[in-house]
Amino acid sequence: MAAEESTVWPKAPPSNPPVQEASERRKSHLRRPAARASLADAGWAGHVRAVVENVQPCVDAGRFPIKRAVGEQVTVEADCFADGHDHLSCVLQYRHENDAAWSELPMLELGNDRWRAAFTVDRIGVWRYAVTAWVDALGSWYAEFARRAEDADLAVAARMGADLIDAAADNSAAEQRAQKRRRGEEQDRRREEELGRVRDEERGRMRAWAKALRQGSADRLKAIALNPKLLDIARRHAARPNAVRSAPDLRVSVERERARFGAWYELFPRSTAAEAGRHGTFRDTLGWLDYVADMGFDVLYLPPIHPIGEQHRKGRNNAVQAATGDVGSPWGIGSAAGGHTAIHPELGTLEDFRRLLEAARRRGLEIALDMAFQAAPDHPFVKAHPEWFRWRPDGTVQYAENPPKKYQDIYPLSFDGPDWHGLWQELLGVFRFWIGQGVRIFRVDNPHTKPFVFWEWVIAEIKRSHPDTIFLAEAFTRPRIMHRLAKLGFSQSYTYFTWRYNRRELTDYFTELAQSPAREYFRPNCWPNTPDILSGPLRHGGRPEFSLRLVLAATLAANYGIYGPAFELMENRPRDDASEEYLNSEKYELRHWDLQRPDSLAPLITRINHIRRANPALQSDWSLRFHATDNDQLLCYSKTAGSNGVLMVVNLDTRFTQSGWVDLDLAALGLAADAAYEVHDLLTGARYTWRGARNFVRLDPRAGPAHILQLPAPSGVTVR
Amino acid sequence: MAAEESTVWPKAPPSNPPVQEASERRKSHLRRPAARASLADAGWAGHVRAVVENVQPCVDAGRFPIKRAVGEQVTVEADCFADGHDHLSCVLQYRHENDAAWSELPMLELGNDRWRAAFTVDRIGVWRYAVTAWVDALGSWYAEFARRAEDADLAVAARMGADLIDAAADNSAAEQRAQKRRRGEEQDRRREEELGRVRDEERGRMRAWAKALRQGSADRLKAIALNPKLLDIARRHAARPNAVRSAPDLRVSVERERARFGAWYELFPRSTAAEAGRHGTFRDTLGWLDYVADMGFDVLYLPPIHPIGEQHRKGRNNAVQAATGDVGSPWGIGSAAGGHTAIHPELGTLEDFRRLLEAARRRGLEIALDMAFQAAPDHPFVKAHPEWFRWRPDGTVQYAENPPKKYQDIYPLSFDGPDWHGLWQELLGVFRFWIGQGVRIFRVDNPHTKPFVFWEWVIAEIKRSHPDTIFLAEAFTRPRIMHRLAKLGFSQSYTYFTWRYNRRELTDYFTELAQSPAREYFRPNCWPNTPDILSGPLRHGGRPEFSLRLVLAATLAANYGIYGPAFELMENRPRDDASEEYLNSEKYELRHWDLQRPDSLAPLITRINHIRRANPALQSDWSLRFHATDNDQLLCYSKTAGSNGVLMVVNLDTRFTQSGWVDLDLAALGLAADAAYEVHDLLTGARYTWRGARNFVRLDPRAGPAHILQLPAPSGVTVR
Repeated sequence: MAAEESTVWPKAPPSNPPVQEASERRKSHLRRPAARASLADAGWAGHVRAVVENVQPCVDAGRFPIKRAVGEQVTVEADCFADGHDHLSCVLQYRHENDAAWSELPMLELGNDRWRAAFTVDRIGVWRYAVTAWVDALGSWYAEFARRAEDADLAVAARMGADLIDAAADNSAAEQRAQKRRRGEEQDRRREEELGRVRDEERGRMRAWAKALRQGSADRLKAIALNPKLLDIARRHAARPNAVRSAPDLRVSVERERARFGAWYELFPRSTAAEAGRHGTFRDTLGWLDYVADMGFDVLYLPPIHPIGEQHRKGRNNAVQAATGDVGSPWGIGSAAGGHTAIHPELGTLEDFRRLLEAARRRGLEIALDMAFQAAPDHPFVKAHPEWFRWRPDGTVQYAENPPKKYQDIYPLSFDGPDWHGLWQELLGVFRFWIGQGVRIFRVDNPHTKPFVFWEWVIAEIKRSHPDTIFLAEAFTRPRIMHRLAKLGFSQSYTYFTWRYNRRELTDYFTELAQSPAREYFRPNCWPNTPDILSGPLRHGGRPEFSLRLVLAATLAANYGIYGPAFELMENRPRDDASEEYLNSEKYELRHWDLQRPDSLAPLITRINHIRRANPALQSDWSLRFHATDNDQLLCYSKTAGSNGVLMVVNLDTRFTQSGWVDLDLAALGLAADAAYEVHDLLTGARYTWRGARNFVRLDPRAGPAHILQLPAPSGVTVR
Repeated sequence: MAAEESTVWPKAPPSNPPVQEASERRKSHLRRPAARASLADAGWAGHVRAVVENVQPCVDAGRFPIKRAVGEQVTVEADCFADGHDHLSCVLQYRHENDAAWSELPMLELGNDRWRAAFTVDRIGVWRYAVTAWVDALGSWYAEFARRAEDADLAVAARMGADLIDAAADNSAAEQRAQKRRRGEEQDRRREEELGRVRDEERGRMRAWAKALRQGSADRLKAIALNPKLLDIARRHAARPNAVRSAPDLRVSVERERARFGAWYELFPRSTAAEAGRHGTFRDTLGWLDYVADMGFDVLYLPPIHPIGEQHRKGRNNAVQAATGDVGSPWGIGSAAGGHTAIHPELGTLEDFRRLLEAARRRGLEIALDMAFQAAPDHPFVKAHPEWFRWRPDGTVQYAENPPKKYQDIYPLSFDGPDWHGLWQELLGVFRFWIGQGVRIFRVDNPHTKPFVFWEWVIAEIKRSHPDTIFLAEAFTRPRIMHRLAKLGFSQSYTYFTWRYNRRELTDYFTELAQSPAREYFRPNCWPNTPDILSGPLRHGGRPEFSLRLVLAATLAANYGIYGPAFELMENRPRDDASEEYLNSEKYELRHWDLQRPDSLAPLITRINHIRRANPALQSDWSLRFHATDNDQLLCYSKTAGSNGVLMVVNLDTRFTQSGWVDLDLAALGLAADAAYEVHDLLTGARYTWRGARNFVRLDPRAGPAHILQLPAPSGVTVR
């Protein structure tokens, strides 16, 4: 894939005449009803022969950007062709939105009129790219010349080539003059002079070539004409008449690495008090930072930290009436103590929060806040801005419902009410407030119950000033809604991993996430549990179940998270058989966790997060490949990145030992067909000698759920 | 699929406020750099909550129309959703471009936020369609009401519903007033009054419903509220605030039936003389019309009928030097006798040609002309318009090459030269000239060597005045080029059928033609042979090979053609081993054919064309389904149309008898799983009793290449 970049080509912005945009020209024609209007007036471009179609990647015809993290490649392909048999030249053009100048790379033809080039995005922000193609007169002449045989014919063809070469030299001189006129004082004189010298020298070679072609003897003309180096020079200097450029420009939203790779830990600060029964504070949470950081997490995500409403406050286990002293749900936001820009008084002060942020940062831990745009009945918004709510004829506000859930303690905001402008600006202000404190990651609660256009606007506004901000969408809802949220700007999304258990489900779902075109904009973040979801096998499940789901999440997805300490302490009691809620859920009461419990999964988590950090293969999603096994309970998959390769073999049966043969796609792993190689289990330290594709595996759930095997570096075979 | 249309819905054009076009609004935002511009000014539509995405069918984001023939359906699907849990309404809107008013149909939700409706195109020309969605306040209220339980809550909810119903009645009244104002004298008074009465009556029912909801007792409110008939009325009359409409409008190019279904016969008129050695004329061709029509062909396609150049005329078997008396290639167009609007003198006069057209028409036979836009060196263009050619420095014009073919007798026209406007208008005039004579089908020679934009323009121009014109693209070249020509307006295209021989090749290729998204614009026309191509098994092949290729072409594709009488007389001698050319090709010399030869395939052709005409299943392409067989030499496929079903079992081995079991997809054929049924061989008249999916077949190539079995009408099972 890197081959495209190695071709010599000027990296300077093209200074050719502006290219034609075919689709624009058509549009102007469509606006004209007159059948007999002159052709040129009607916008039909008779000189334009090249076609650029089907530029990929591309989301909804360019309506939305694709996504990348800094340092990643964008591999662009397009169908480019022209009528007849002339040669075509195609370039990929790209620039960061803040740069005026476009860079460009020649595209290589893959065959069947498909062209490809790749560029690397080395800065965050929005980049643009486009494909330009034109009929390459020089290349066409050159290829045709090689076929000619008769003397007279050769002489005529040589003269035609000489004319083209002289025209390229003329164009080079004209460009140089134009550039000189454009240049201001601030330009780098020395570089300019050096470029000028190169140009002068190359023009000299072109003039000499053209002259030789005009004067050469018939028997030497072929030798004179067929000089690929000179052809290359002349093509670089030639004009690009009637070039066609793809339209509209396509965009890449480039975010920092954390958007692509990270381990999240969700924690209720109010449950961090050292003594059971006391309301925890940010100062208590300070004492947990080492614990979380030492486990190898990158992001510490806190549920809402704002004042909790008193009116209609929920009691323990979601009781509609709170008892005295019940702490309520952090998502019931707002009270006399303030709203979305205030700190819940029992957690501490804004100063305490800033101290927590700073202390976390020193440990390489970033704090993510939960943005839940809704209000408790006593949120200051309700009195100050009644127009931001939808009132019923009896003077009440309908509480929120997210069927089957009912939130009697929560009023939804009316995003399309008469003063939506005011509300939207206020909520943008909420983001800006926390960004001002230093927060750069937001987990957004229920984004699918607010208008899509609101999110598109607010994320664009924030990214404009703070492009390092990351947004995680809590949207477990309908797939097309999840995708829309991802397209319009959310960096990451929760996924259906939480409900995918067997081999078929996991294989299908992760193949979709890693291979479907939606991967260009949808970045998964996989959670085995959340405060809302104690799902499937974790209900009443024990250590093997929790270990299994942890290994799957952390190795299938570059972004994953757990809700702790419920996870590492294997909290497994559901509230009832009908819901996925926890019994005595932390959402409604304080909990006190014994982090020192000897059966804690913290050591396993630590090990796995360490493996993730040490192996680039586990830090992105697209390289995921599933490999065959002859036992349905064994799931085998690999991830690769450059010379780093990791192979997982997971026993999906948490009760019994399972064994069987795995059948590796050796080509995908860059391994030779029949050679022996050593695999190194990064979980246990064990080393095995394997040979070829078929190897035997045996996993006892009491020992652990999986092999995480480091593979040898690929040996000459190309890694796909 | 017809279910969508049965739902009651007003067919009148919607008179609601203009809908928002989301993408337009975004664009206006993108034009504004200011971050702090007021939200509304910046084009962000805070009230707009619905989303319409991924409208299908759609070619290149709406850049090109899809294609249909008159009477066909357009089934439109789209992803439509909104934030939150409100109900959505979606309609499909469509109109013929010449109509001012849009028709509309409600779309049905298929699940997973996908919606569908279908409309029938009953006139040729261009149609437009779009999808509009909006949050349905009444529907949302109704669904929510059903869930409410407490008395007080019910009363409040009832009042909210009453407000919505009254608003719908108000909207209905306002619309009626607005329509009255708009109406001119020419309107149908009686229909208007009747519609007014219906509206008045429905408004009365709405008012009564609202009143009942305001006054109803708590214990009866549910019964009052939940009336689906009244809900339906109110929803029809309600406004559609903040509706979102897909943009741009998508288009359907609707052509007459012949674009979808036809059997073509290609014939050199100069070879129709009764006596060997004499140059045939149009008068001679008159004598062939019964022969061609009786075989059941729909289109008689003639190679170019214009004067043939004298300079550099080709001799027999493509000799670069013609011998005295050699007739030259009809594609070497133009001489002192005229150019593209003249008739080759040896064929007769324009009057003779018109007589031929008319005589063919009387026999249900349409004549297609070959448009080859190129010139012999003595074409009048060369002297009159030297600027339409590309001259070499030695004063010559480079002759045409279509590698590996060389056409020394042909000068290409320069479509992007300085006077391209003049040339294009001239060539448009050529089409118009022949349209003026009554020709409505054009086979276009080598369209891929002329600019795509030329074809897009010229076809659009002609279709504007003569939408019944059909264009067949001769483009065997690169697939993306064939597809571009189809997208930009060619009605049909030659295909790779000519080079697809074994079961795998045929299955893959025809599955692609019938099922891939490209079927929306690419209509195949399948030819076993052409004057240029004596391919594969036909070379040295005999009766079984010709029969096999005929049956495949005529039953796999709704449009097919043969080059005759070379085909029915099984002309099989190639010029050499390297090319696909015929020995003694009619392209360069007169031939004399003995139509009475007892071994002629004419009876088989007649039979097959008769079967095609009698079975609608064979008259379109999309229903094609392949069925499994346990013998690689047996190809089994079906086509269906309504209650008509035809099953082909073809023996691909022309030497040996082949037998085996076919395994039918009974559901696709609408047949019951285990019942017995009779199949009727339309080629031989034989009848067989089959049972269930697996049935035994035995085919002897000496008896014939295939079964063409008429299936019983499907019995209650839905035909897919």
